[in-house]
Amino acid sequence: MNAPLEVWYEFASTYSYPAAMRVEAIAKGRGIDIRWKPFLLGPIFQSLGWTTSPFNLQPAKGAYMWRDLERTCAQLGLGFVRPAVFPQNGLMAARIALALPDERARGAFTRAVYTSQFAQGHDISDPALLEALLHSSGQDAGRMMAQAVSPSNKDALKENTARAQAHGVFGAPTWRTADGELFWGNDRLEDALDWHSKCA
Amino acid sequence: MNAPLEVWYEFASTYSYPAAMRVEAIAKGRGIDIRWKPFLLGPIFQSLGWTTSPFNLQPAKGAYMWRDLERTCAQLGLGFVRPAVFPQNGLMAARIALALPDERARGAFTRAVYTSQFAQGHDISDPALLEALLHSSGQDAGRMMAQAVSPSNKDALKENTARAQAHGVFGAPTWRTADGELFWGNDRLEDALDWHSKCA
Repeated sequence: MNAPLEVWYEFASTYSYPAAMRVEAIAKGRGIDIRWKPFLLGPIFQSLGWTTSPFNLQPAKGAYMWRDLERTCAQLGLGFVRPAVFPQNGLMAARIALALPDERARGAFTRAVYTSQFAQGHDISDPALLEALLHSSGQDAGRMMAQAVSPSNKDALKENTARAQAHGVFGAPTWRTADGELFWGNDRLEDALDWHSKCA
Repeated sequence: MNAPLEVWYEFASTYSYPAAMRVEAIAKGRGIDIRWKPFLLGPIFQSLGWTTSPFNLQPAKGAYMWRDLERTCAQLGLGFVRPAVFPQNGLMAARIALALPDERARGAFTRAVYTSQFAQGHDISDPALLEALLHSSGQDAGRMMAQAVSPSNKDALKENTARAQAHGVFGAPTWRTADGELFWGNDRLEDALDWHSKCA
């Protein structure tokens, strides 16, 4: 059995950036397949009565997060700029990620979106940007943009968000192992892989 | 120069338990002195309008935390039981920790309080328990209980809490390096020590 590790992520999530950039290569090095599981944190936060990111609701925590993210990216050799708008609207990016034909395409597009947002400071809710990212990752951009907003694909994203919540996911990134254990945060990837290796 | 690493902790904080149990030995192994900085999270949470721990306000996050803490303690070989009451009132324990004569005594008492709470499930607001822990760690328990509630010691704890907030501390444990960098969480101790070693 070679069960995949599930990568639950939200495009507006800051720590999902380093997580998404490094998971595929590290998992591959351990012979572990991954499944990209885009979902939306907005509805989960709204169910707690929050109207924005907890990093905005708690300014001290937010200030720490930006500094910590900067340090983390420097340590990993990843570019970093603080985007002008936070959190960004990652709805369309998540829909596109789900609509893509396979995990390889999802990974490439996901990394391109995070790089654009957190290494280049772009606004990932911009359809023209998303089209360009699709195009440069070798996809038929027009077709994917259309598929992304198909009723069945919109429903698939809603279902992913509901499933995340049912699994107990409350933040991103969350790693879910073959036996359903959750590990939350970029810095818990290695723990998640260790656990997954023992149970898969 | 051999500046100490500051250990900002709150007795009710769950992840402060493994953090407090391991910091002294690991820091010593690297030739780094530590300073125990007990403070209260309550006033910081209250300034955000919270009346209890965020782990109670966010049930999914709370459920994850208890499971994750159990895994973390197992990994570190630390006992763990979930206390009946959470968060506990750590006011008196924090006052005692501050009143103790030196870092060595603070460390021994701090570990004894966390072990009592999270390995044995006791209520650390109980004065009789705190007296017993003082006694078994070689202190004059009666004298320390009295010193703990002296006006100057009460003020010292208020000052620690105000200083934590001024430093940008929003949770516990928080490691503060010689150059004022913050690292939050038990699992960031090694990062904090790496940083501290470079700047101290």
